[in-house]
Amino acid sequence: MTDAAVTTVAVSHEQQEREAEITRQVLHAFGDCADPRLRQVLQCLVRHLHAFIREVRLTEREWSKGIEFLTRTGHITDDRRQEFILLSDVLGASMQTVAVNNEAYGDATEATVFGPFFVEDSPEIALGGDIAFGAAGQPCWVEGTVTDSAGKPVPGARIEVWEADEDGFYDTQYDDDRTAARAHLFTDSEGRYCFWGLTPTPYPIPHDGPVGRLLAATGRSPMRASHLHFMVSAPALRTLVTHIFVRGDELLESDAVFGVKESLVKDFRIQQPGTPSPDGRDLADQAWSRVRFDIVLAPDGT
Amino acid sequence: MTDAAVTTVAVSHEQQEREAEITRQVLHAFGDCADPRLRQVLQCLVRHLHAFIREVRLTEREWSKGIEFLTRTGHITDDRRQEFILLSDVLGASMQTVAVNNEAYGDATEATVFGPFFVEDSPEIALGGDIAFGAAGQPCWVEGTVTDSAGKPVPGARIEVWEADEDGFYDTQYDDDRTAARAHLFTDSEGRYCFWGLTPTPYPIPHDGPVGRLLAATGRSPMRASHLHFMVSAPALRTLVTHIFVRGDELLESDAVFGVKESLVKDFRIQQPGTPSPDGRDLADQAWSRVRFDIVLAPDGT
Repeated sequence: MTDAAVTTVAVSHEQQEREAEITRQVLHAFGDCADPRLRQVLQCLVRHLHAFIREVRLTEREWSKGIEFLTRTGHITDDRRQEFILLSDVLGASMQTVAVNNEAYGDATEATVFGPFFVEDSPEIALGGDIAFGAAGQPCWVEGTVTDSAGKPVPGARIEVWEADEDGFYDTQYDDDRTAARAHLFTDSEGRYCFWGLTPTPYPIPHDGPVGRLLAATGRSPMRASHLHFMVSAPALRTLVTHIFVRGDELLESDAVFGVKESLVKDFRIQQPGTPSPDGRDLADQAWSRVRFDIVLAPDGT
Repeated sequence: MTDAAVTTVAVSHEQQEREAEITRQVLHAFGDCADPRLRQVLQCLVRHLHAFIREVRLTEREWSKGIEFLTRTGHITDDRRQEFILLSDVLGASMQTVAVNNEAYGDATEATVFGPFFVEDSPEIALGGDIAFGAAGQPCWVEGTVTDSAGKPVPGARIEVWEADEDGFYDTQYDDDRTAARAHLFTDSEGRYCFWGLTPTPYPIPHDGPVGRLLAATGRSPMRASHLHFMVSAPALRTLVTHIFVRGDELLESDAVFGVKESLVKDFRIQQPGTPSPDGRDLADQAWSRVRFDIVLAPDGT
């Protein structure tokens, strides 16, 4: 059997009926599902999955390759690596889900992909603390406020931050059990926050697995635009999962996971060696950077 | 965040545009793929995947559950268990693929699902040989012919057969390395074949994993209608992957993988103990059965 040509295949009415009948049988089988939401999701999934197979006239060899691809994706996934999230990310399914669940609300800060590198139970730091815990990179002073959409400061908002080091790796990508370049902190009584992080640098998503091979086969780059992850939560407000990006980064237009939004591109201002730091920290002869990110949270349930 | 209600959600035009823009970005990213067929398949997959997410307004919690489901499916899959094929089977994706690739051709025998239990390098048996190799079950004499669609016998056609034992398990589901209830044989110079198998009995697909839990959550039975697998190949003819089913089996209407086709339901005639066997085999005081399955192969490339 040869793979189907790209040109549209003419399918007889009789054959179309035969194919549609299979979809009807499967939808019917899920018709008794007692949970109406689960029924809705699965029936919709079946309709689109079958339509995809019919539309491309998926060959049996291609079906087998799909099964093998999913198997390899499952086998490379473990406690420290989540290849299915990467797959969702590079197919834009993650950003589509983000879009569906984070409709614009006034001036609330926009969301973007969660990514596969968040870890529960990050260390807590005080305001002005350093998230690096030994991770290599140029120091970056990050400051801003958390307010609600009426402009009211949000005290005690929990801010989780995480990022790659200057070699492009998150802590979880190293073989030791280090925790580095991640932490959480809380806004002060006036909704302010600040901390030392690292100036973000571009890096490839892990591309030594099935998802990397998919990108290579399709001529796509695995590079992500430089960014710093945030997850911000407070009672009665919509939890925000987002990044900030670095203005001027040439990868902003070709981010591998489609995460860039113009409103999230920020000025990381490079400070020459010797420039006094905001909190008096001695940075010796090092250059450093600073960025401001004022966060606006939408009401919960929006 | 609560899961989306089943009722249709009104989505503003502006929001629809925002969601459509993400899909456009992803389609564009695959636009440089040098392999036109791969580009077509992936772009079509992206369109349907995104449309599914938008249509059900997939929540972030549901997205996470999906990632976890795929992860568990990957982790239970190994050399002897293929949970992704089971998933494809219970979603009807396997039968849809079979339908797309096996358009009706004259009186050619219909195809059905391959399933997860085929093994390469099955033992060869002579005509009239026994595929059981110790597997428990009622003996069943299977005989028929292989012809092309012009009615011409096909000598030397390779016939692979495999089935579950009377306890409902394939050999690969046992912890030892047994090979049982599977074999291959070749038609004689007049296209005839015959062998001893086991009278098929109903069994559940492996349902102690994620796919089984999916079926349970949706009120679906994991039971497959009783069947015997065939894969028949010969030069210049379309390879046939199919089963035969047992007329009278009450599961014919509710097969877990949607594999049943009326033309594949056969009369397995039960023979009382003492009935002489076709090849003089001594069956002692055992009942046995017999079935005829005449196979017609379509031309290759149809």
